[in-house]
Amino acid sequence: MVEPANTVGLPVNQTALLKDELDIVIPTIRNLDFLEMWRPFLQPYHLIIVQDGDPTKKIHVPEGYDYELYNRNDINRILGPKASCISFKDSACRCFGYMMSKKKYIFTIDDDCFVAKDPSGKAVNALEQHIKNLLCPSSPFFFNTLYDPYREGADFVRGYPFSLREGVSTAVSHGLWLNIPDYDAPTQLVKPKERNTRYVDAVMTIPKGTLFPMCGMNLAFDRDLIGPAMYFGLMGDGQPIGRYDDMWAGWCIKVICDHLSLGVKTGLPYIYHSKASNPFVNLKKEYKGIFWQEEIIPFFQNVKLSKEAVTVQQCYIELSKMVKEKLSSLDPYFDKLADAMVTWIEAWDELNPPAATSANGKA
Amino acid sequence: MVEPANTVGLPVNQTALLKDELDIVIPTIRNLDFLEMWRPFLQPYHLIIVQDGDPTKKIHVPEGYDYELYNRNDINRILGPKASCISFKDSACRCFGYMMSKKKYIFTIDDDCFVAKDPSGKAVNALEQHIKNLLCPSSPFFFNTLYDPYREGADFVRGYPFSLREGVSTAVSHGLWLNIPDYDAPTQLVKPKERNTRYVDAVMTIPKGTLFPMCGMNLAFDRDLIGPAMYFGLMGDGQPIGRYDDMWAGWCIKVICDHLSLGVKTGLPYIYHSKASNPFVNLKKEYKGIFWQEEIIPFFQNVKLSKEAVTVQQCYIELSKMVKEKLSSLDPYFDKLADAMVTWIEAWDELNPPAATSANGKA
Repeated sequence: MVEPANTVGLPVNQTALLKDELDIVIPTIRNLDFLEMWRPFLQPYHLIIVQDGDPTKKIHVPEGYDYELYNRNDINRILGPKASCISFKDSACRCFGYMMSKKKYIFTIDDDCFVAKDPSGKAVNALEQHIKNLLCPSSPFFFNTLYDPYREGADFVRGYPFSLREGVSTAVSHGLWLNIPDYDAPTQLVKPKERNTRYVDAVMTIPKGTLFPMCGMNLAFDRDLIGPAMYFGLMGDGQPIGRYDDMWAGWCIKVICDHLSLGVKTGLPYIYHSKASNPFVNLKKEYKGIFWQEEIIPFFQNVKLSKEAVTVQQCYIELSKMVKEKLSSLDPYFDKLADAMVTWIEAWDELNPPAATSANGKA
Repeated sequence: MVEPANTVGLPVNQTALLKDELDIVIPTIRNLDFLEMWRPFLQPYHLIIVQDGDPTKKIHVPEGYDYELYNRNDINRILGPKASCISFKDSACRCFGYMMSKKKYIFTIDDDCFVAKDPSGKAVNALEQHIKNLLCPSSPFFFNTLYDPYREGADFVRGYPFSLREGVSTAVSHGLWLNIPDYDAPTQLVKPKERNTRYVDAVMTIPKGTLFPMCGMNLAFDRDLIGPAMYFGLMGDGQPIGRYDDMWAGWCIKVICDHLSLGVKTGLPYIYHSKASNPFVNLKKEYKGIFWQEEIIPFFQNVKLSKEAVTVQQCYIELSKMVKEKLSSLDPYFDKLADAMVTWIEAWDELNPPAATSANGKA
């Protein structure tokens, strides 16, 4: 049996890395008591809380945290008609926080995620590991058998081309989960008692040309490098699908990172995932996705972006056109989603005009 | 500091998996005392020892092991003029053993590899793990973030297409090394004291379309599925290059596995690698490879085998033609290597006529 770390009484990390350059985005419909456990590691950072569901409900944020909070009324007020691209009654709403942030880095975490222990019993500072992952390069063009070659005690092995050892910038760091694994509803139903107890001490680059299932539970990224592609789609209220928000974003960011020669890492850090969601409810949300992904994934595997697409926004608009052209026949939903992708980029650019972005040191 | 396991006194595994279907191939120029440490795990299996260098030298094999041994005179006698494709004074000679075997599976290990300990201190039965890797499927078409989905306690995560969950047959299992990592000469020179102490408890499929540096130190494969592509090239005596034998085989098997929809796994098991080879000697052997691989790897990344190539032999002959056509301009050596690739296939087919192979259950 794997247990979360007890972090009560641990001192708050006063030398938190990048504390003025990173926002933590949390979607929630309930209180944020889980932040008590994260206090030693997360209190130094600014939070952007995206309140889902009933906007009149009061969200309690533990004392001492610096935060801004947006509910549905705020989203509607800020985005006007473009608010249609932000999902309601689904954690996909979190991407509104990515858009509101003005920082270079984002860490997003679910409110049922607690602090994991490493095999020595030490509490894992997940955010610190994500930052390490983002600050060191990725190696997407050739596989390194000793995993992350930039990690202490590791390197590129014999036969790794020297011209590729500089690596590329890392845009995304995908962390994992101990205890409740991120399974789909059918797997949850078949294996209700399966728990992830295996702590794999590795970080790796997902090779170029390979898609992966990106989970939004424990995820960090470089907003300047890939932010505009981190759109979590149309899910939840009024939509035929749920629980594919992060998957959608994962497919999109991966093909764009591949096109722009940016890296995507997965592995450490682990969080402790406390609650299995209801598999029957999940099945209802997922079943179309389970069917559709059989066509969506080949679609993404065959995406070829043009040489003219040199910014994330340009790539994303190109991708939206391909979605409209190739996936609308699967379901009219994809026509609507393709439009929402365009709306998202318009809203992003409105809230993040080039001048504001360059203040963070990136054009 | 990481240490090898002490296996003296451990009982010999009497229920060794696949003991009549697997040969262990060992290239050596010295005595085989390292087999004492492996006795609990390897004694039940048949050994094929390929003696490199001076054929008059007597190789001592620890008592109790069942083996056949081939020296250079044997190779020349058995292959006649085709013996030219088997390297001399280089561990590349091991591939002669792959050809002589009539079993379905091969495990090959270097004579400076000892038994590793897992984090709990238990001696790692490397061969058992290789067999598990080979007997369960691979998942090369989509990345699974919880690593090998077929392992106990793991599965495919949310968003993994159901149509891909059956996986494909695994052709190759690439194991890793604790203590002395498999570094090239420049890295050895720069980091003479680096030791690999990180035990990463994972096995994973190398995605389709991704090349990797395959090390021959601790390697297992399905001879029926990929044997004829496991040619370790022309290295050592009379050749301009060494220490690229396994790399060459790794590039070749990977593009052929990708073409034939076969899986290649890497990760567990670890062995304990005891001796760092001399970096100055290695540099002399490697320096052309270090330069050439900058062109060879893009070549392999762009290999497209034809639809007509449906057997490993057909793929390999096609590949040899491409090597001749595209790499000969790099150095006349590749012209010779391309010819040796053809000779290798001819010798393989001579020693493994279709009837003999089908006795193992495969056409």
